[in-house]
Amino acid sequence: MEERLYNFSAGPAVMPVSVLKKAQEELLCLPGVGASILEISHRSKPFDDIINSAESNIRQLLSVPENYKVLFLQGGALTQFAMIPMNIIGGRNESADYIVSGTWSKKAASEAKTQGKVNIIWDGKEGGFRRKPKAGEYTTSADAAYCYTALNETIEGVQWKELPNVDKPLVADASSEIFSRPIDVSKFGVLYACAQKNAGPAGVTVIIIREDWLERSPDTLPSMFSYKKLAAANSMLNTPPCFSIYMVKLVTDWLLNDIGGLEKMAAINEEKAALLYAAIDESNGFYTGHADKEYRSVMNVPFRLPTPELDKQFQDEAKEVGLMTLGGHRSVGGLRASIYNAMPREGVVKLRDFMLEFAKKNG
Amino acid sequence: MEERLYNFSAGPAVMPVSVLKKAQEELLCLPGVGASILEISHRSKPFDDIINSAESNIRQLLSVPENYKVLFLQGGALTQFAMIPMNIIGGRNESADYIVSGTWSKKAASEAKTQGKVNIIWDGKEGGFRRKPKAGEYTTSADAAYCYTALNETIEGVQWKELPNVDKPLVADASSEIFSRPIDVSKFGVLYACAQKNAGPAGVTVIIIREDWLERSPDTLPSMFSYKKLAAANSMLNTPPCFSIYMVKLVTDWLLNDIGGLEKMAAINEEKAALLYAAIDESNGFYTGHADKEYRSVMNVPFRLPTPELDKQFQDEAKEVGLMTLGGHRSVGGLRASIYNAMPREGVVKLRDFMLEFAKKNG
Repeated sequence: MEERLYNFSAGPAVMPVSVLKKAQEELLCLPGVGASILEISHRSKPFDDIINSAESNIRQLLSVPENYKVLFLQGGALTQFAMIPMNIIGGRNESADYIVSGTWSKKAASEAKTQGKVNIIWDGKEGGFRRKPKAGEYTTSADAAYCYTALNETIEGVQWKELPNVDKPLVADASSEIFSRPIDVSKFGVLYACAQKNAGPAGVTVIIIREDWLERSPDTLPSMFSYKKLAAANSMLNTPPCFSIYMVKLVTDWLLNDIGGLEKMAAINEEKAALLYAAIDESNGFYTGHADKEYRSVMNVPFRLPTPELDKQFQDEAKEVGLMTLGGHRSVGGLRASIYNAMPREGVVKLRDFMLEFAKKNG
Repeated sequence: MEERLYNFSAGPAVMPVSVLKKAQEELLCLPGVGASILEISHRSKPFDDIINSAESNIRQLLSVPENYKVLFLQGGALTQFAMIPMNIIGGRNESADYIVSGTWSKKAASEAKTQGKVNIIWDGKEGGFRRKPKAGEYTTSADAAYCYTALNETIEGVQWKELPNVDKPLVADASSEIFSRPIDVSKFGVLYACAQKNAGPAGVTVIIIREDWLERSPDTLPSMFSYKKLAAANSMLNTPPCFSIYMVKLVTDWLLNDIGGLEKMAAINEEKAALLYAAIDESNGFYTGHADKEYRSVMNVPFRLPTPELDKQFQDEAKEVGLMTLGGHRSVGGLRASIYNAMPREGVVKLRDFMLEFAKKNG
């Protein structure tokens, strides 16, 4: 095997090595099946067992209440940006409230406008998307069916520490936060996450939706855009992304059996993030974090050096010592270390040590 | 490695063993990259090389004219059933013609009705979906933007031998026929195929669309439903299904380098199919094929035995000798052998021999 580097990509992102090894081992032949997970029918018993295990793992990890459905859909978060308003407020005299706290919630609001009335009830753009709103800075609209938020803004590294307290069901993009800590699913109408950060590889999106909301899907929608029809078919109106779902099963097995659940995962993640933020805070201004301290993301740590040239030099030298994909999002530049569940503590320590050394040399 | 069986599944379906082995070998680490294809950013150079190779392989295999775009989308054929009319006739005073020759084209027409005016210009239901229409049995509508057909009906095993000759651009579902033989792409406005039969694993759909048709996408569509926006972003408005695209690259590498192109693949496929149809035709009525002879599919061979009990016994005994997934589609029953590109000739011979022996014992 070639040498694996520490991969700080924001998504697709690092996966647990034990999960990759298991997938590799089984890639030619699922035990007892006679064919690969890439080849078996989605209507077969072996695949049924896989998708059911993935769902049951998710239910266990997040304590999903019984009145919620778990779906495995395609198209990523950007598809959900449209499907949510299409299904939830489509054809109704209702609107939707959006809290815009970064690139992804801004994009979600913009896509939602193709489907119905959208109220931006808070916009952090003026402040450079460095924080979430405080209580009292936003109020929901009387005719709003839901209040939308991105739990963690992957690009700006801004995260809710506690869920916003509103009098409407929340709808949230949990793409870069799911499975990183426990969450109270009962507060949500829809909670969803593309898999390629903490749940598996690209190609599947996990949607957790309150059952009574399925009745909101207009009957006129094409089948593949209707939560109601997708849920009635257990995500299998047609062939689902079988391999990606299989990987979600393996990743959630790992969370349950190797890590021991989300309380433990959260503690590990907090400690990893604290290492990097300490390196930033103790650098006498050599490193500047993007987010305001109380909204700092535990998953994505965007930061800058004194000049763009140093940003680049940092990235290049880091790559040489096995720390890859530290560039910030192409829309904002700078640097970003994404330290999802599967990033080992050693990788974070190595990056922290590199930061200290680089600051000493170039500060 | 566990023993692999011969897998006659209609999709997801058998893949070339050499392709699976290559994917297995690289699953922990892509050569020179330091991370798995499951983990690398879709904006990275290594992934760019992969998606570009997949596209260039497809262009080479199908001689795709320069004025066509190749897209890699999610959601399978069922999503295209809606996206095609949504983009091509949506918001226009135009209709779409549908030739209904089996389960999948019927479903496509039904989904299209959610988006605009649909004319069923031929329906093979009365005849039990055993054939395609002959010239003169259908005429296109004056206001139709396209004429839709499924090149090969996977469930009924009914296939066009020559493309229908119409005065409108064709739009076709090539899911269970793509890469099985050469095809004249210039006759199509849109030619598309979900990958999980001849192109790769489930999770990606290949769309080949005439460039001037991109201008038809209404500007009001959500980004992920707009061919225009998806094409402008080279299929990467958001994270694409990276692993499935990587597998399409490997499968098309195999077609080009190991098989030697689609003329050769077609000859191999014809010969394989002839073996099974001969076993049916020479069984003195013990086996009955579904399709009329001149419309028999080279990819899917549905057949029946004299009784449903014998169908079941056949399937059970076949499984015991390593011939798996021979059941017909759940909507029609009977038996079906799907013998896609990657089904080795030995598998077909083994099935043929089993058929002969079973008929002798039970006929």
